[in-house]
Amino acid sequence: MTDLVPGKLARVSGSVRIVGAGLLGSSIGHALVKNGVDVILADTSPAQLRLAVDYGAGRAEAEGDAPDLVVVCTPPDVVADTVAAELERYPNAVVTDVASVKLEPLRELRRRGVNLVNYIGSHPMAGRERGGAISARADIFLGRPWVICRDGETPASALALIEDLALDLGAVPIEMTPEEHDRSVALVSHVPQVVASLLAARFAEAPEMSLSLAGQGVRDTTRIAASAPELWVQILAANAAPVVEQLDLIAADLQRVADALRDPEAAGARRTTADAIRDGNLGVARLPGKHGQRRMFETFVVMVDDASGQLGRLFGDLGELDVNVEDFRLEHSPGAQLGLAEIAVDPATLQRAVDGMSARGWRIAGAHV
Amino acid sequence: MTDLVPGKLARVSGSVRIVGAGLLGSSIGHALVKNGVDVILADTSPAQLRLAVDYGAGRAEAEGDAPDLVVVCTPPDVVADTVAAELERYPNAVVTDVASVKLEPLRELRRRGVNLVNYIGSHPMAGRERGGAISARADIFLGRPWVICRDGETPASALALIEDLALDLGAVPIEMTPEEHDRSVALVSHVPQVVASLLAARFAEAPEMSLSLAGQGVRDTTRIAASAPELWVQILAANAAPVVEQLDLIAADLQRVADALRDPEAAGARRTTADAIRDGNLGVARLPGKHGQRRMFETFVVMVDDASGQLGRLFGDLGELDVNVEDFRLEHSPGAQLGLAEIAVDPATLQRAVDGMSARGWRIAGAHV
Repeated sequence: MTDLVPGKLARVSGSVRIVGAGLLGSSIGHALVKNGVDVILADTSPAQLRLAVDYGAGRAEAEGDAPDLVVVCTPPDVVADTVAAELERYPNAVVTDVASVKLEPLRELRRRGVNLVNYIGSHPMAGRERGGAISARADIFLGRPWVICRDGETPASALALIEDLALDLGAVPIEMTPEEHDRSVALVSHVPQVVASLLAARFAEAPEMSLSLAGQGVRDTTRIAASAPELWVQILAANAAPVVEQLDLIAADLQRVADALRDPEAAGARRTTADAIRDGNLGVARLPGKHGQRRMFETFVVMVDDASGQLGRLFGDLGELDVNVEDFRLEHSPGAQLGLAEIAVDPATLQRAVDGMSARGWRIAGAHV
Repeated sequence: MTDLVPGKLARVSGSVRIVGAGLLGSSIGHALVKNGVDVILADTSPAQLRLAVDYGAGRAEAEGDAPDLVVVCTPPDVVADTVAAELERYPNAVVTDVASVKLEPLRELRRRGVNLVNYIGSHPMAGRERGGAISARADIFLGRPWVICRDGETPASALALIEDLALDLGAVPIEMTPEEHDRSVALVSHVPQVVASLLAARFAEAPEMSLSLAGQGVRDTTRIAASAPELWVQILAANAAPVVEQLDLIAADLQRVADALRDPEAAGARRTTADAIRDGNLGVARLPGKHGQRRMFETFVVMVDDASGQLGRLFGDLGELDVNVEDFRLEHSPGAQLGLAEIAVDPATLQRAVDGMSARGWRIAGAHV
């Protein structure tokens, strides 16, 4: 079990109320309970609430509860309703939400004329592939960005409370405006989801034979296409404007490359294709990698069979060679009972790693595109 | 060093001539030399040829060479030229090529009226992220599909020779027509490359702050965008028709989703978005995973620090718990000195793995979207 160091919230806050005891709400509950906080859980589904309480994410509400902090963890389409209701019910509490879109709920609250002095939207960049109180875990926020959307009228004490919440859960607080947040998640999360889904959709009725040639590249490119439709329909609808803007640009880019390939003798056609690949090189190099840095590593590939003992020996040998593994990926060969372990190391240690592993009897293969 | 079991080719073939001593040519050379085959290397670049010979991929050609098999490993744009020249020079040899597009060179050869009885196109689905004789390795073909494009006039003996080549190098031979091959690689390789590149290109000038929210999902989706432009311009140009067909369809799909998000009250708008995500679910589930099967695994996440010794201990503990690791992925938290090891196991062993690892002091975190 996980034992977090008692956090700041436990010292400043009498109790925290969490509305919506699904994956995120229950996960926050677990972390705060372990942190020594009195966590009050609420959910429109009595079954979900009971599960969350049984699993130890907090207690059901009781007469006289007076939370200092309310965390709204409902689905995106009812966030504004819930935030408004909580602000009215607990006028002395700071209210935040964890929805993955920030501008639309804020606009809705403003349209209703709700007093928002005590409201600060936030968004922890964490989740799991499956939802619900059963999947909840205290540690899903560790090391993840937690966006906090303050505005001019937010009191410093309220902001500090949300920062404490993020820090107590092990997340990294990042301040943004709601507009900055929504444009950012459109770019790095919502648009990639749509693109990966539409690319993967081409395989839904493709011949089995064609798919047998699929390698690690296309598997990586389409991995997130396995995401659940229900949530994504809500997220995309709630963040439509910046998503649509990017989708239009990408559709136009695709059309431009298609036209260039259709008519290769047209002026600039080959350059259009080359520019598309080159701009992709530039873009992917800007994504933060390990620890937010952009260091270059060298990779080599070691053949392993499927036994986990083999991987233990592999890492044991690397440790004895004093080779630090910067990144690791396990690939599987189609139709073969062997795996390919792609190991990224500092360029200065590559030769030592390859020689040392070869000497210890490991079969070194090439890296794969 | 790798020692392959002497293969069939060594028994049936006096010598194999490889034209083009870059990554693929030199890699085939290394594997065949280890297999006991007399390998003759040729390259228009004397420097590249010298490197390949120095590294042990074969020998330079000599008076009186009479190869039984010629493998053309030149860049796509000169494949037809080279195949025609080799067929004329060695009328008793079987000639194959390893270009990643099969129809365009064949059409060009037919246009020229070349006698193609002794020609069989092929395509090993292998490569590395960097090219050249220096990067060559005998083992890059292990477990990879090797497409062989026979036609009606191909003699059985010639086909057998190419199959022996593929098998000797550890690849899995797959027969396809050139049309089937080109449509297949367009779908699972060329189109994903364009889509990933154009998605990543959106990051080339995006604000640093937005990119700081990027997680593992978008990193996976855009990983192949790091590929080299020069080669891809040739590949895409040579396989334009099936690539363009798919790009048009994806551009139209993107536009359809963008329109649905723009006008969410239009009839069927929400369904359009949901269908896109759902079709992506169906498509990605059809990609062959481990060993071509589509088994479901459960994943759990263990926190590790950056020392490779930790990974050795991790896999050692999993081995002692008799937990077989079906898949493994190392994630890095932005701004944090820790890694998250995502471990896929058989659902039947999940509880034992989690309990056992917790008992051994490992910190178990949730899985991440």
